[in-house]
Amino acid sequence: MSSAAIKPIEQEDAYVTRLPSGERWLERKDPVVWSEWRPGAPLALDQVKKFERDGFLVLEDIFLPGEIDALIEESARLRSDATKLHQESLVTEPGTDDVRTIFDLDLQSEVFSRLAEDVRISEPVRFLLDDEIYVHQSRLNYKPGLTGKEFYWHSDFETWHAEDGMPRMRAISASILLTDNDALNGPLMLMPGSQNTFIACAGETPEDNHKTSLKQQKVGVPSAEALSKLAQDHGIEYAAGKKGTVILFDCNTMHGSNGNITPYPRSNAFFVYNAWSNQLEAPFGAAKPRPNFLGRRNPEEPVTLREGHIESTE
Amino acid sequence: MSSAAIKPIEQEDAYVTRLPSGERWLERKDPVVWSEWRPGAPLALDQVKKFERDGFLVLEDIFLPGEIDALIEESARLRSDATKLHQESLVTEPGTDDVRTIFDLDLQSEVFSRLAEDVRISEPVRFLLDDEIYVHQSRLNYKPGLTGKEFYWHSDFETWHAEDGMPRMRAISASILLTDNDALNGPLMLMPGSQNTFIACAGETPEDNHKTSLKQQKVGVPSAEALSKLAQDHGIEYAAGKKGTVILFDCNTMHGSNGNITPYPRSNAFFVYNAWSNQLEAPFGAAKPRPNFLGRRNPEEPVTLREGHIESTE
Repeated sequence: MSSAAIKPIEQEDAYVTRLPSGERWLERKDPVVWSEWRPGAPLALDQVKKFERDGFLVLEDIFLPGEIDALIEESARLRSDATKLHQESLVTEPGTDDVRTIFDLDLQSEVFSRLAEDVRISEPVRFLLDDEIYVHQSRLNYKPGLTGKEFYWHSDFETWHAEDGMPRMRAISASILLTDNDALNGPLMLMPGSQNTFIACAGETPEDNHKTSLKQQKVGVPSAEALSKLAQDHGIEYAAGKKGTVILFDCNTMHGSNGNITPYPRSNAFFVYNAWSNQLEAPFGAAKPRPNFLGRRNPEEPVTLREGHIESTE
Repeated sequence: MSSAAIKPIEQEDAYVTRLPSGERWLERKDPVVWSEWRPGAPLALDQVKKFERDGFLVLEDIFLPGEIDALIEESARLRSDATKLHQESLVTEPGTDDVRTIFDLDLQSEVFSRLAEDVRISEPVRFLLDDEIYVHQSRLNYKPGLTGKEFYWHSDFETWHAEDGMPRMRAISASILLTDNDALNGPLMLMPGSQNTFIACAGETPEDNHKTSLKQQKVGVPSAEALSKLAQDHGIEYAAGKKGTVILFDCNTMHGSNGNITPYPRSNAFFVYNAWSNQLEAPFGAAKPRPNFLGRRNPEEPVTLREGHIESTE
């Protein structure tokens, strides 16, 4: 399997997208859950069924309060000391210097690296994907209160496939809430069941699209009609919960979040786990791949699963 | 009582605002509920107590389904035929021609005029204000799905006092939901109890402020610190409900609404009732009053309370 930036002529594309001819709906060609459930699996049978049906699953109370505190402390430290981070990995709130996203989170923080490997997250993900896993992308999201902007609806896989070269739908995102989230402060909204439809998006990818798409996505976005129909077919749920709650969701589940005028910020750590066998090829819908902090190429080895508790490094 | 545009030198100002010297917090000097409750009053005692404590009250199931249908039909008709309306009374969604707001709603539609007079709304309001009432402002709000923008936090009274010359806090807004509203499609959010504090805002009013403030308010907005403290003191609730639900709220209750990326639009009819004895004077914080469609001057007579059912005019 090649990870070269030049697209091989014979590269097979199961999910053609960025279509000059206009949007198309395709059926998903990959399983959502890759393992057969068995007693002793790291998720209960009904959790696995729920993930398969809805394309997401919420895990509550899997961390101790002290562990959550350590993660929050670390995230405050990173944001206040952002000058020490790779500047390319930072996204600021439009119009301000406030750090909205820190990419390469596990590579820039021991505590979050430890979190990415924690069995309470990594083992269920490895089970659902039935493969060794590696971190395709990681980030710390911070949506401030009062002025937090929305993230419009999208399938992550559409972008990862088109712009990073992820071949198949065999990746799962884990969002670990670092603030209490309710319906009003811009929680993650998902369309349950939408993971089974691939919306091949209209329009060709502009060069260096990621430089603007991280602030506001314009290509790789379904049409208003498609979103209305998807919502009508599937409804919209939101994943709220106390800090420490973990939301696992499939790479193709349609999701987004509203802006947030409440004074309550919303923050989470975010790890995308890709199956080891699903490593990046040449992009399927862009001239060159996005930078490594957005889609990691040539990982050295799979995630090592770690047991025990997360502790502050101080 | 003068309603001239020139501010009398001796005009008494109970709520000085638009302060060059910066924001100030003042205690409310007016009752929230002006009547004494008595058996036979148009609201139950616990409803009156709730309004007094929280600064808002939700009335459910007061209309028949056919009445709600008639209102929704009429609102669709108005929006689709907007060229027939006074162009000044229309506000469009930033960047599009879609009608977001139609002011002077009761003056441009028989059906909505009838709604404004309906005893199921007007009688409770007249009771709470203990006075004859008139419509200070009326509008149809339509926040489209997918792209609906937020309305930032504000006290209506602050603007009505500063820019329209409303002397005292003796006005109540009624929002009649024309779409089902839930937590995700940008519902009205309120800070219960905030009606008892007047936040005198920093900054002087620019000329013709209303021409931009209807799209995005920049003056008459509390600081981030004030909003954070108010939310900490009072919390935030949201008023959701089925179409037909009515939300009554005091003129000084801090409120706002998030943007809405769900495909579900949010629409409501909105009437501001002012006490007859509280008619507009010269503006307290602006060089000249806003146009009549934003703050009605010299009303001819109080609202006539109408019983019976609302019907389509067709």
